[in-house]
Amino acid sequence: MSSAVLLISCPDQKGITATVTNFISTSNGNILHADQHIDDQSNTFFMRIEWSLKDFHLSRELIAQKFGHIAQTFNMSWELFYTDNLPRVAIFVSRHLHCLIDILYRHKAGRLDCEIPLVISNHKDAEKIVRDYGIEFVYLPVTKENKEEQEQKQLEMLKLHKIELILLARYHQIFTKSFVEHYPNKIINIHHSFLPAFAGGSPYAQAYQKGVKLIGATSHYVTEILDEGPIIEQDTVRVDHRDSLEDLKERGEDLERLVFSRAIKLALQRKILTYNNKTVVFD
Amino acid sequence: MSSAVLLISCPDQKGITATVTNFISTSNGNILHADQHIDDQSNTFFMRIEWSLKDFHLSRELIAQKFGHIAQTFNMSWELFYTDNLPRVAIFVSRHLHCLIDILYRHKAGRLDCEIPLVISNHKDAEKIVRDYGIEFVYLPVTKENKEEQEQKQLEMLKLHKIELILLARYHQIFTKSFVEHYPNKIINIHHSFLPAFAGGSPYAQAYQKGVKLIGATSHYVTEILDEGPIIEQDTVRVDHRDSLEDLKERGEDLERLVFSRAIKLALQRKILTYNNKTVVFD
Amino acid sequence: MSSAVLLISCPDQKGITATVTNFISTSNGNILHADQHIDDQSNTFFMRIEWSLKDFHLSRELIAQKFGHIAQTFNMSWELFYTDNLPRVAIFVSRHLHCLIDILYRHKAGRLDCEIPLVISNHKDAEKIVRDYGIEFVYLPVTKENKEEQEQKQLEMLKLHKIELILLARYHQIFTKSFVEHYPNKIINIHHSFLPAFAGGSPYAQAYQKGVKLIGATSHYVTEILDEGPIIEQDTVRVDHRDSLEDLKERGEDLERLVFSRAIKLALQRKILTYNNKTVVFD
Amino acid sequence: MSSAVLLISCPDQKGITATVTNFISTSNGNILHADQHIDDQSNTFFMRIEWSLKDFHLSRELIAQKFGHIAQTFNMSWELFYTDNLPRVAIFVSRHLHCLIDILYRHKAGRLDCEIPLVISNHKDAEKIVRDYGIEFVYLPVTKENKEEQEQKQLEMLKLHKIELILLARYHQIFTKSFVEHYPNKIINIHHSFLPAFAGGSPYAQAYQKGVKLIGATSHYVTEILDEGPIIEQDTVRVDHRDSLEDLKERGEDLERLVFSRAIKLALQRKILTYNNKTVVFD
Repeated sequence: MSSAVLLISCPDQKGITATVTNFISTSNGNILHADQHIDDQSNTFFMRIEWSLKDFHLSRELIAQKFGHIAQTFNMSWELFYTDNLPRVAIFVSRHLHCLIDILYRHKAGRLDCEIPLVISNHKDAEKIVRDYGIEFVYLPVTKENKEEQEQKQLEMLKLHKIELILLARYHQIFTKSFVEHYPNKIINIHHSFLPAFAGGSPYAQAYQKGVKLIGATSHYVTEILDEGPIIEQDTVRVDHRDSLEDLKERGEDLERLVFSRAIKLALQRKILTYNNKTVVFD
Repeated sequence: MSSAVLLISCPDQKGITATVTNFISTSNGNILHADQHIDDQSNTFFMRIEWSLKDFHLSRELIAQKFGHIAQTFNMSWELFYTDNLPRVAIFVSRHLHCLIDILYRHKAGRLDCEIPLVISNHKDAEKIVRDYGIEFVYLPVTKENKEEQEQKQLEMLKLHKIELILLARYHQIFTKSFVEHYPNKIINIHHSFLPAFAGGSPYAQAYQKGVKLIGATSHYVTEILDEGPIIEQDTVRVDHRDSLEDLKERGEDLERLVFSRAIKLALQRKILTYNNKTVVFD
Repeated sequence: MSSAVLLISCPDQKGITATVTNFISTSNGNILHADQHIDDQSNTFFMRIEWSLKDFHLSRELIAQKFGHIAQTFNMSWELFYTDNLPRVAIFVSRHLHCLIDILYRHKAGRLDCEIPLVISNHKDAEKIVRDYGIEFVYLPVTKENKEEQEQKQLEMLKLHKIELILLARYHQIFTKSFVEHYPNKIINIHHSFLPAFAGGSPYAQAYQKGVKLIGATSHYVTEILDEGPIIEQDTVRVDHRDSLEDLKERGEDLERLVFSRAIKLALQRKILTYNNKTVVFD
Repeated sequence: MSSAVLLISCPDQKGITATVTNFISTSNGNILHADQHIDDQSNTFFMRIEWSLKDFHLSRELIAQKFGHIAQTFNMSWELFYTDNLPRVAIFVSRHLHCLIDILYRHKAGRLDCEIPLVISNHKDAEKIVRDYGIEFVYLPVTKENKEEQEQKQLEMLKLHKIELILLARYHQIFTKSFVEHYPNKIINIHHSFLPAFAGGSPYAQAYQKGVKLIGATSHYVTEILDEGPIIEQDTVRVDHRDSLEDLKERGEDLERLVFSRAIKLALQRKILTYNNKTVVFD
């Protein structure tokens, strides 16, 4: 049975929750989940509300139209989703395939509610496995000289496949500001460190050099500033002096897969809002 | 600024959230926190809602009275709290004092919003530290023969001090069914294992003998069945073959203090509901 | 470059470490790793020592022969391994394939130093993926009536493939005592709970019913008593009231894969000794 | 029963372990613990070895003298300790007392094998509790102008009390290079972040601003560069958008106490070696 999900943020004031829940209730909706949060510093109200469409009196067109009036009253930013509209996802990858393989496995096992019609890579390593899954693989090698040209081709492919969420599964190219602006809060990266520690290249080598006792992984939305976007999910795992750099990488791969897959799942379930370069995650 | 907290559970049906939030909204209340949960198996609705009393139009007497009508309509179990009514807490302890000392420290540091007028013990070990904190210490040694008689005295002391929450900070006596029935879901125990593993006596010795790679601690409400009440909070910590039984106890103490203090804090903040011998924790 | 690994256990007495390290040193061996542990309760000495065979003066035959004399003197139980002899591993699986797929992935990625020539299953679900990896798949459905007969066939296959380590990757059949005795401390199981909690069938359903705040996974050697063998590795992950039974299973799968793969890796690296139904793990 | 502990580091070569264990064995010593590690990058050998002095043939003077010859042969850096010589420890603290109180509690509970004759502070907040424990409290307020003068007094007090280990339990003053050079790898700090993230002031505010999903704590040796010394121990704990800055501080306090106490215990047990601004921790 399908349900509708509203993600809302607006300046806090009295009556928001009552108004939103009345909107659903008076049209015979059954609320399945409701979470709200108020950020005291910025006096911002956040809400995620999900209700069953079974016996709901409004058509989908009318839901958007009628809720639009409410939204205007409270000066809301809002998004409306339906759980039977599977998000269309593209994956970018370079030569480290563990995150890609993990996503494809989870998707096939029915753990990720989305469609994955497209994988783009600047290398050919992933080609066979992607094609084995019946997914289109597009090889677009990137150099300093051809980056903008290749990004144009990437954007065409993304539009062609009606992609709304992009996953960077260890894609080792930095997008131009222009590319990122096409997909605000729609590109999720996995970085192999506990950000903000060890941003940039070779985070495991940095961690090894520093002698940290934990390594981390961070999944975040991509903004125009490298490794600085809103953090969705992070975790750490213990290491010690016996672990070589290669050991760190191996342990880190397990952590990356876990952290990345959790972040992806949260995004697909429409559980993430962003503000002030941070996230509200209604898990 | 004070606020009111409602804890609600009832059979799920349409319109509960809208009705409750309207009740607050129409009397000019500002909702600070709202969490809800539906248990699909039992079709039960749970809610915790907190709103500011600043500029709220209803007096405290009227809140209870008016909400009572709503509650009846939806067949709700409900509790109403005010954050400026500090809960009155009694601590029971035997000879292991680490949890007691930790609670007293946190209380003094302003981390636990409650009053602690009473500590009861079947030993004298805690007497000095309790008195140093200016808290009444009652020594009631318990034997098989005098247990019921001593429980009567304990109940008298609890009533005298208007206690509403009892903390068993490593109190190594089992209460009679009759005693427990006076305080349903009002007695919180800390058990030094990951329940249901290693219930009963000497859990660290059991864990050592078994060769587990993690030890745990569990804080739960006390019911008439030993170590079987609804679990509020649990955690584990890694151990290995190098750890002696004494090491397990030492590491475990740190874990007990953390797990117990988290559970206590949740209870004081009115964030726990129980059903089917389980808890809903709105953290 | 190859190295030799000795695993030793014996009654503790003075001079063991010196004798063993002299044995290596006087034949020009370079010790790469040395770990020891003394269990005070049973007065037992445990050691894992690894040394490079580069420029070592003794041939492999002579190492075993000469060390045998030392072992006799100290009444040692001992095993000698060479890192260039890859262990031959068989996997048993039923219908939940996540652990199997994870092992095959890690093996292909070069993370597990072993050969995997054989997978045995009582169902056909795994057949395609196993064959795609170029591994022999043997389908042996098991009923109450044919269990002993099928175990005979399993034993034949294991001998044929010279298997020395058996991995039960969610194999939902209980071996007879007779089968287990062929592979003492050579069968590794993954159980989807924090043992000893929730032994036996449906541990996630048990955990859900109990309302625990953490779920666990345990990898252990198989003995004739179900879910009671020496524990190699365990871990837990946090859950809460919002998690359905299906959520527990999904989170649990990630945990199972991690815990199982760590245990397998430890076994392949010859880092595990057993005593008193417990393990010493030199990680 | 007393034991001796040797901490050794030197360029790796064949025969070190055999030579050291022979040294102990030939004088009738019983090795209780032996750990070694080889850093492949720098080809450095590290060892911690502990043996019982019961029936050991050499006097303490002769142990040092004779081992000195071995050390010279292998070009070792080495330290020799006896477990019955309790380290003398001083604590520096400012106004946040939770770490101080935790250390004093653990010391009184017999969990820290050391003597604590001295606490120095630039504020008077800790005075009463320190004196209640029977420990000398020295009040030395520090300004930009008097820092060097006050450090002279601090050094005098440290010498007077024969202090060999200094604990900075949230001491919010930066020592001069000259002060630090008096106690190389003998000053342990607790920093309230996962270093290298959020070094410097107000790490919780930085973490809150950044929107991280975990906060951390790091205990490290103090060097002349702020928050850059060798890391002894770290840990993290999960936070989310519901946690205010004050919540982060409260959770962080629990983490600081755990991480700091583990680091202190490791130092008191002589389990830490340093090299290349990193630590080898033989736990």
